[in-house]
Parts: sequence; C-alpha cells; structure tokens
Amino acid sequence: MINFQIDYAEGAHPTIMSALMQTNMLQTPGYGTDYYCQQAKEYIQTYLNPTKCDIHFLMGGTQTNLTFISHVLRPYEAVLSPSTGHIAFNETGSIEATGHKVIEIPSIDGKVTLEALQKIVAAHNTVHMLKPKLLYLSNPTELGTLYSKQELERLSHFCQDHQLYLYLDGARLGSALTAPSNTLQLSDYAHLTDAFYIGGTKNGALFGEALVISNPLLQDCFRFSMKQKGALLAKGRLLGIQFAELFQNQLYFKIGQEANSMAQLLKEGLSTLNFPFLVDSDTNQLFPIFPNSLIDYLHQRFTFLVWDTYDESHSIIRLITSFSTTRQDIYEFLSSIIQFQEKDALQR
Amino acid sequence: MINFQIDYAEGAHPTIMSALMQTNMLQTPGYGTDYYCQQAKEYIQTYLNPTKCDIHFLMGGTQTNLTFISHVLRPYEAVLSPSTGHIAFNETGSIEATGHKVIEIPSIDGKVTLEALQKIVAAHNTVHMLKPKLLYLSNPTELGTLYSKQELERLSHFCQDHQLYLYLDGARLGSALTAPSNTLQLSDYAHLTDAFYIGGTKNGALFGEALVISNPLLQDCFRFSMKQKGALLAKGRLLGIQFAELFQNQLYFKIGQEANSMAQLLKEGLSTLNFPFLVDSDTNQLFPIFPNSLIDYLHQRFTFLVWDTYDESHSIIRLITSFSTTRQDIYEFLSSIIQFQEKDALQR
Amino acid sequence: MINFQIDYAEGAHPTIMSALMQTNMLQTPGYGTDYYCQQAKEYIQTYLNPTKCDIHFLMGGTQTNLTFISHVLRPYEAVLSPSTGHIAFNETGSIEATGHKVIEIPSIDGKVTLEALQKIVAAHNTVHMLKPKLLYLSNPTELGTLYSKQELERLSHFCQDHQLYLYLDGARLGSALTAPSNTLQLSDYAHLTDAFYIGGTKNGALFGEALVISNPLLQDCFRFSMKQKGALLAKGRLLGIQFAELFQNQLYFKIGQEANSMAQLLKEGLSTLNFPFLVDSDTNQLFPIFPNSLIDYLHQRFTFLVWDTYDESHSIIRLITSFSTTRQDIYEFLSSIIQFQEKDALQR
Amino acid sequence: MINFQIDYAEGAHPTIMSALMQTNMLQTPGYGTDYYCQQAKEYIQTYLNPTKCDIHFLMGGTQTNLTFISHVLRPYEAVLSPSTGHIAFNETGSIEATGHKVIEIPSIDGKVTLEALQKIVAAHNTVHMLKPKLLYLSNPTELGTLYSKQELERLSHFCQDHQLYLYLDGARLGSALTAPSNTLQLSDYAHLTDAFYIGGTKNGALFGEALVISNPLLQDCFRFSMKQKGALLAKGRLLGIQFAELFQNQLYFKIGQEANSMAQLLKEGLSTLNFPFLVDSDTNQLFPIFPNSLIDYLHQRFTFLVWDTYDESHSIIRLITSFSTTRQDIYEFLSSIIQFQEKDALQR
Repeated sequence: MINFQIDYAEGAHPTIMSALMQTNMLQTPGYGTDYYCQQAKEYIQTYLNPTKCDIHFLMGGTQTNLTFISHVLRPYEAVLSPSTGHIAFNETGSIEATGHKVIEIPSIDGKVTLEALQKIVAAHNTVHMLKPKLLYLSNPTELGTLYSKQELERLSHFCQDHQLYLYLDGARLGSALTAPSNTLQLSDYAHLTDAFYIGGTKNGALFGEALVISNPLLQDCFRFSMKQKGALLAKGRLLGIQFAELFQNQLYFKIGQEANSMAQLLKEGLSTLNFPFLVDSDTNQLFPIFPNSLIDYLHQRFTFLVWDTYDESHSIIRLITSFSTTRQDIYEFLSSIIQFQEKDALQR
Repeated sequence: MINFQIDYAEGAHPTIMSALMQTNMLQTPGYGTDYYCQQAKEYIQTYLNPTKCDIHFLMGGTQTNLTFISHVLRPYEAVLSPSTGHIAFNETGSIEATGHKVIEIPSIDGKVTLEALQKIVAAHNTVHMLKPKLLYLSNPTELGTLYSKQELERLSHFCQDHQLYLYLDGARLGSALTAPSNTLQLSDYAHLTDAFYIGGTKNGALFGEALVISNPLLQDCFRFSMKQKGALLAKGRLLGIQFAELFQNQLYFKIGQEANSMAQLLKEGLSTLNFPFLVDSDTNQLFPIFPNSLIDYLHQRFTFLVWDTYDESHSIIRLITSFSTTRQDIYEFLSSIIQFQEKDALQR
Repeated sequence: MINFQIDYAEGAHPTIMSALMQTNMLQTPGYGTDYYCQQAKEYIQTYLNPTKCDIHFLMGGTQTNLTFISHVLRPYEAVLSPSTGHIAFNETGSIEATGHKVIEIPSIDGKVTLEALQKIVAAHNTVHMLKPKLLYLSNPTELGTLYSKQELERLSHFCQDHQLYLYLDGARLGSALTAPSNTLQLSDYAHLTDAFYIGGTKNGALFGEALVISNPLLQDCFRFSMKQKGALLAKGRLLGIQFAELFQNQLYFKIGQEANSMAQLLKEGLSTLNFPFLVDSDTNQLFPIFPNSLIDYLHQRFTFLVWDTYDESHSIIRLITSFSTTRQDIYEFLSSIIQFQEKDALQR
Repeated sequence: MINFQIDYAEGAHPTIMSALMQTNMLQTPGYGTDYYCQQAKEYIQTYLNPTKCDIHFLMGGTQTNLTFISHVLRPYEAVLSPSTGHIAFNETGSIEATGHKVIEIPSIDGKVTLEALQKIVAAHNTVHMLKPKLLYLSNPTELGTLYSKQELERLSHFCQDHQLYLYLDGARLGSALTAPSNTLQLSDYAHLTDAFYIGGTKNGALFGEALVISNPLLQDCFRFSMKQKGALLAKGRLLGIQFAELFQNQLYFKIGQEANSMAQLLKEGLSTLNFPFLVDSDTNQLFPIFPNSLIDYLHQRFTFLVWDTYDESHSIIRLITSFSTTRQDIYEFLSSIIQFQEKDALQR
C-alpha cells in the first residue's frame, strides 16, 4: 500500500534519528531543563525576533492545544473555533474536558472570516452565555488552505480590540511556511498571535511540538500546567534534541518544502485529468472530488481518507504528502487513475 | 557530575535505540493500530496469563495515572492513596484537575496497611463525603519498599469486598520484579489488581508506559479517554517497538536487575560505613541518612535528591541507580565519603 | 410596566406561600430527609405509575441539568441537544464546565427530528470524536412548541436502540401538560425518558424543580452529586412543602392551565390583527413577528424579549404569560397595538 | 425530640417570612437585578465601610464556596484549608470537582496557625506540586472557636506577602459577630480578607448567603460563574428581600445573639456538672465529652451529633443552638443528664 493518508507514517527524518542516536548515552537533567532544550529554544528564537517568546516542548498536538487553552482561560470563558477546527471535531472533546466550550464558527474552507467572527462575538452579550476569550485558528487549516498575512492581521487586530487571545495551531506549519503562496514568516506569527505551536510530529520529528507563547501575560507558571496535564516529558531532552536539529540548519523548512512539492506534482497531475477540488490548496493536503467507483479502485493500492460525501456518486477525498512521499508514489497514483478510466471506458 | 538523582538521565537502552533505528523508515498506520503495538501486547500478555488483559501504551507516568483514574471514576468518587503516593504529592494536582479528590492515608515507608485502609473507608459514610472508589498503590513505593504477595493479596481482597478498584503504579516495576525479596510476578499483578502499569521511562525505554487493564468492566472505550487527554501518540508504533523489544527477550527484567545490583552494591558499602537508612530497600532507590556537611561535600561531584530533614544536622537523601550506573560510579561515591570523613576527622 | 418577559416575576402562588407560612416553625431534619419531601414524592409518584421512580428536589433548572447530566456521563461521553436547547445557548457553559461537550443538532422550532438525530449519531464513529450518550430535549421547547406522544416515542426508541439516555427538561412542563394539543401525561414521561424534571420555578413555586429518575441504573448515589454541586438544600423541606402543595390537589396543572389560557387569548388577539408567528404554539410562550417601530412603542409600557431579527424592519419577539397574567394585561397589550397602528396610519 | 443537632431545623425567622409574604405578588426582574437585592446590598455595605465591596447572594454554603473558589483560581492553583474545614471533609469533594486540590493543614481546634501555614507554603516549591493560592478559613470554625482580630491580621498579612487570597466562610458569622469574646467587626472582615460570606441559612434566613468580594481583582464577571454553577437564582429577589430584612434593623445580629446566649446557658450548666469540653467555645456550637451510656440515654429525647470518639467509653458530641432554642429546651437537657446520673448511681 502506498500512503497518502497521513504525514506521520514513519519514525523520524533520518537526520533527526541520527541526532538522537549520537546523544543517546549522554546524561542530562529531566523535564526540559537540559542543554539541548535550551539550545533548541535559542535556535527557534532567532526566527521570532524581535518578539521575545517563551518556548515549551510538548509531545503532541491535542496535548499542546488542551494544555495551553486550559492554562489561559477562566472558567466562564470560551474558545471560538471554525467548525472545521481540529479541537472542534477531531480531539474527542479535549477542550470541553477541561471545562470550556468550543463555540463553532461555521466554515467550509477551514478559515474564519472577520465578518463571521464579529457576528458571533456580538451575539455573546449576556450573563447567560459564556464570554468568548480565545480564537483558535489553524494554519494551514484542516482543509489545506492558508491565511494571508493581511487576513491574519485583520483577525489579530479584532482580537486585540475585543480582548480575545489569538492562538494558532501549527500542526503543519512547515507546509504553510514553505507554500508557494505563503506570506507569513515565523516572526509574523510571534507578532500577530498570543501563542502558536510549531508542529514537529507531522513535519519529520519522531514526535513533539514547540509551543511559542509571545504574550508575556500568558507565560507565567505554564510548566505547572504542563506537569498537571501529563505533558512534561521526563526525558525532555528528546524534544530539545529534535527541535535543535530541525532549526539549526533549516531542516524544518526543507522537510515542509519536500512535502509541498510532492503535493504540487500530484495537484498538477489531477488538474490535467480534470478533477475538481473542494478548495484550492498549495500545501501538503489536497481535497479532490472523485467518483466513488474510482475511490474503491484506488483503495486497493493506496491509503487515503474519504473526507465527505459530495453527491450520490462522488466523494471528497483527502490526499496527504510528506517528506517521504516519492515522485514514484505520485506517478503510480496518477497511472492507476488512468488505468481505471480506460477500463471504465471499455466497460461502458 | 555523577548521577544518583534520576533513573532517566539518558536516552534509551542501546538495544531499544537500535530497534527504533532499524524500523525508522517503515510505514505504519497511526495511533497504536500498527503491527508493532500488536506484537508488543502479545509478548506482554504471555507474562499475564491466565488473566486476559487489555494493554495500552502511553507516554509517561503522570499521563497514565490521570487518564486511567479519570476514565474509571464517577464524579462523586475519590481515590485513596498513601500520603507518599506520587499522585498525592508529586504530580501537580493532576487527579484533582480531572475532578477527583485524592484522600491521603498517612504513610512513612510508602506502603498502605490494611488497618489504615479500613479505618479511612469506614469514616466515609455520609452523603457529605466522597465515596472512596479506587486504591492507588505503587510498587516499589516512592520509598523503594516492596509489598509482599501476601500484603497485596490482603489489600486486593479488601478492595473486592468493598467494591474498590485497585490500581498499581509500576513506574519502577522492573526494579520490583527483579528485587531479591520480590514475591510478585506480572501474572500476580494482573490477577490482584484491576489495572497496573509497567513503567518504561525509568527502566530503559526512551519513553512510555504499558497500562494493563485486567478488569473487563474498565476496558470499554479507554482509547477515547486516551485521545481526550492527549495521550494517544500519533506515531504509536514508537511505543510498540520499544515494548516489543523490552518483552521479547526479557530485556525489561535484565535492565531492572542491573539497576538493583548497583543499588545493592551501594547499600552494602553504606552499611559497612554504618550509615542508617530511613527504610530498608532492595530496589533501585536508597534513603540513607547523612550529615548535612557530607551532603554538601558530595554535591560537588554527585547529583542526588535531599528527601527530607532528619534532625538539625542530618538529612535523608535519595540515591537512585539505573542500568547505566557503573561499579566505578559506586566506588567513587564511597571513596568520596571516606575522603570527607578523613578530612573531617583531621579538622576536629 | 406590564410583564410579558418572564413567568417568574412574583414570589410564589399564594397557596404555596400559605403552606410555607403554616409550616414555618415546625422542625425537621435537613437535606431533604424530612416528612414533607417524602410526602411530595409520594404525591408525584401517583402520577408516574406504573414506573417506579427516584425523585429529588433541586433549586433551579440550570442546577438540575448540570447535576444530572454530569452524574450520568463518563468523561468521553457527550450530550446531544437541539441548537435551541437551554443548555446549548443559555446556561453559560454549565455542562462544558463539568467536562462534557454539548453537540448541537440544528433546529429552528426547538425540536429534534429523528432524521437529524440519526445523522449526527452516525457521524460520531471514531476515537477522535466523543461518544454521544445523552439526548437532551425540552418540552415545551424554548420556542413554545410541543412534542407529540408519537414523536417522543420514536425518539425514545431510537435512544434505546443506540444506548443513549433520554433526558427531558421540563422547566415549563406545567404548560405542556395542560396545552390544548398535549398528548403526553406525566406517566408517559416516566416511561419514555430515563429522567426528566418537573419545573416549579416557572409554574408557581417560590423556587425548585423535581427531578424524576426512572432508569434504575442512573439512580445510584445521586444525592452525592447533589451535595457536590451545591444542590442539596440544607432546609430541603422548603422544596418538599412546595411540591406537596403543587401535587396534592392538582395545583400544578391549574397553574399551567391559567398561563396557557392567557397565552391563547393573546394569540387569538394577535391573529385577529394578522401578525404572523415564527412557530405555532399553544403553550405559554408566543413568538410573533412585529415591526420594529411597534416594538419600540410597546416597550414603553410592556416588558418582553426581542428574540431575534426577522428582516430589516421586523423582529421576532417572545411573549410569556403566567398564572399572574390577567385578562386586563392582555387587553391593554392588544389596545396598545391598535393605538399604535391608528397613529401610524395617520402619519403616513 | 428536642433539636441540638442543627441550627436550620425551621423555615425562616418570622420577621423574614413576613417580609416574603408582604412582597409576594409584586413583580420584579429576575436573576438578582431587582430593587430588593440592590437595597440589601446597600444595607450590608454600610457595615463594610470604608472598604467598597461587590456583594452577591447565593443559595447555600457549599454553592458559595465552590462558585467563588473556582472563579478565582487558575488550574494549577490549590486551596489551603484546615483539616477541619468544611470544604475539606464535609462538602463531598465540591472543590476538587472544579479541578482544585484542597491541601489540608492539620488542625484540632478548627484554626490555622501562622506557623503551620508558613511550613506548608514553604514546602510547595517545585513544578511537581501545585501552587497554593487561596487560604480558606471559617469563623467561627467548625469547632465553634473564634479567631481574634490579631490572629486574623497576622494570617492576612502573611497572605498578602505571599500572594495568597484569603477567603473566609461565614456560615455562622452571626454567632461569631455577637460572641462575648468577639473582636472582629464586619468592616474588619472586608478589610482583612479578599472575600467572605455572611451566612443566612444558619442564622434565621429561609436560605441564602451573602458573598462579599472586597478584592477588586476578583470581582470581574462573577455573575457568569454564578450562572454557570447553577447559583443564579431566577427569583433572586427572594434573597434580596431576606438580606434586606436581616440588615435593615440589625436582625442578623439579634438572631446570632439569641443562639449564643442559649449556648452560653447550656455551657454553664454542663460546666457546673463538670463535663470537660474538646475546645472552649462561646459561639453556638459546644463540644462536650460525654460517657457513651449518657449519649444513648439522651438520644431518646434529643437530637445531636456524635462528633468523634474520645476514648473507649466516651465520645465528643456537638450541641448546636439557634434563635429557636428555648430556655426550656436547655433545662430539659440538663435535667435529663441529672436524671441519668441519679439512675446510674443507683445501679452501681
């Protein structure tokens, strides 16, 4: 089976595994107080200047989201999220389990518009409703789409004007940062959000995410929340070593770039074959609309997700690429489609 | 500095790192549904027979404790724990954060006696108090002591008679299983508890714990709780590969044995030098009582924890060994003590 | 100002106040263990036969909802509610504060259809989503509409088939039970739901709701949850005395009937004047659509809620009646409308 | 049976019932936004000057404690309470249910000493432990004892120096304020604590407590927390009317005084009969030590609580008086003791 289902099907990028091997028997203190974590933070900070940030390493995306969000909210405060947001539909109520409602802003392409945000904030105006306090965004979104710098600036200003925190889930930030249409740098994220995370798991790390907290008011005691939520890794060095490797020589960007370029190749191939897409994406997630019969055929050799029903005979599928996707994988996928079409034409 | 502070100062045991390297670029599905996790569960199950158990792999001890305990308790139910229990004083209120009180049973040596347990259960008899529902034990305890099979049986029967769940934290179970005085096998834990975990982090794994749920009534939907608490590792295979390696050829026991034998060597040396101990231990944690001046002297070359004040001029310290502790480390520690004593004698 | 805003603008129905006065200096034990609570439960039970139920008295609707729902759900289980449900938009995240997501089923008229329910249950099919476990309904709904017996039976059977609990919020059950189109008796609620509450606050009580738990599996230890959530009134007798009075001689039904008949009178008047309604209702809540200029005019003499915008120049308003609404109140309201229309006609 | 068990065995003080009757059919807006609540706040504020406070009315003590404490704490913050504190042993884990540990400070007489407080705060010094943030005290304590003004000042200064909130449970504050040895006025509580509550339920109200928040930083959005926890009474006026009555003409103090004077009479009688007491108290709770045989004898005619075992043949009992206790009740109790003693002497 060839994998277009997930971008975390392997262990780590070989460079990272090699770093873990080389440091394996060195001894360090625990819980992220070691030299490697310090070094990794310094490498990352160089990309965030001039905003001075607190950086913490956690083990996964759901953990990072729930630990940060529960850390900053008061009991009567709620999260705003696009209905497509990972915390809204794909993390088993992890935010609610910490006591906070996720108020959904309807979205089809994964993005929140300023207008939709304004409307929902305005509607929360009595003591019988929660106070919206944190806007959750993802970039790229769960649909592979991207916010432009201007869009993020507008949302950021609205949040500041309305005393909302802006938190951005960067599970696939490597893909966003290196997308052809990208207009946002790491320093922009530090400047425009109160916190965001740089995803490692889906961009070549063995595991791990780097949470960047730029709002000084939200930095206090965060390690207490990490420990309480089971998010303070005993051998914290493992995360430090990986993120040092990812940001010492731009490996993080290289990995994102590789995933994107394979997605672009695939997208061009599908476009040539005239398949429509649910949304336009130049990151490592594509959402073409396929006939159900083709999907069944392809599932014999390829793994990928059926995202949603499109119409009676078509579905939207999700195709994901990663640094380990090869040109050969893409060509086999496209060939299989053509084979199916030829076979299908004969049978009619 | 020579480490007697923690048993998780390195990466992983070399055999485990090697297994992670060899499998690194193989592709698997995510979230613990892969072949390696399946294999690891089968290896572990052979040690648990005839009790048929559900096995899950999580990332750390605090996470395992909070995920399991919150999974099984109703809102009005509480945990019973020795006052020395890790969840009671060393996990930043992680259990309370899920809504449940940890009722402390006073303990000095880390163990719960049947008498103390009976008394506290009897005292909880009105609607104005919580219903105790789960007894939390550690073996070895946080003081390095061990429960005998008879002791665990008595506690287990009491729990059954009083409809209490018995859950055992095995963060250092490798040391317990291979201690000279040990009378409990893995199959006994499966039989006598409702659930327990086999600690990897402190016994040679890169990270990870294997939770064993033997009570069928507590098995349902546990993966939902894992996902919700951020405890479902995307690349779950990493845990499967490690635990397969640990239990395929008894590596888990070998690592525990190495830590214990170094602790025994150290204990014999300290006994020869006539240091008293807070409690007797034949696992990898020792709690000798040292003069404060000696502690200051040793801290120049060795890391270790000062556990508690003993009297005006003495403290209880904690010395921990691991598979990576060498005979040379032990001898240097003992030599340093003798050097201090000689210098001290001269100065008087 | 004449009140069409709330049905809890006074103290209690005079009969109830009188009962509280007469019993005031009698002494009873606390926390609902008194004679009056026992008596009230027996009176209510006669309406529930043959289903044998546990009955508890709580202080308010939000409290009843959050205490019951958190009592029965496991951490990974969620509530299903129409988007119009009180717990979804009008109780300040009280359910989420106990750790559970409220999954909204889109609704305009306040009711859940079987089709919408089926679809949303089917969509929750992975470990990355919560398990829907409890369906929350209100009757009458927050829009004043009613479920027929057949509709409730169909929903109830679906819940049984899918291991969902069915819980019904009866904040205004007095109005439902006595509505012209009503087809459901108290014994039907006991039979078709796992639990429901009989609202006192909005039907003549000083305060208080009677929770009826008919599913024996959900009855255990409920008083512990009440105490924990601050819902176990010290002078529990106050609730017992009130509900005994309400159900000893059908006062509960009489009060509901009075509210409904005033609403019917108002509805007929508005219909004669050709105002459209958002939904048809024969309970004590009406949702007519009024010109905004008329609303401004009426607000000088009448209190009522503007429910939602209808179009540029019209809004949906909510008019509520209660046992204390008089025919005179209705006639003044209708007269004011006619005055406005005449004045308006002149100005054109 | 004559009641020495609870001070909330009746409805309300007749003056309060009368006020509720007179206002019963007046209409007001809901949720505490009415005229009576406003008036009651103004009456209470006159006792708090010069400290300007926010005042809220809630329905019971457990509800007030859990709503306020959860409102002010961050997830990683804990409560400090004497082991005798109501929240520690008598409220069914209500604080833990909101996510916060109650750290117990050992106490026998119900009070916290500065030394014990210092020690436990100093011990919480790592990321593996919670941050103590709020000190919970009761006055009078659960043992009927009182803090002096000097004692409360010292604790208050310590709290300020260590950034701890000081919160005081005044369930029986009426008894404290009117005790012979009292040195603390309501204005002192406002000045020395961050918040405290004035208990109504146990001092003549039908139900209800008045929470006084003097720290401006803790006042924001408190009504949201009230609504969320089910603590915002729909007919909030009921609480306003009662507290207006209690503080308009010093009724609150008069009721406390009556309870105290009956307790003093009882105490003098018991002292004459040479019964020892667990602690000295001049409030409305007494803790004499009685032979078990006498306790059995008295339980035939009197209700009271057996607090704890004293020795093999003696127990500590709790006797409570209230405004409704009569001289006759006291004399009958003392007579019964003498009868028992005479009978007992004969039998020997």
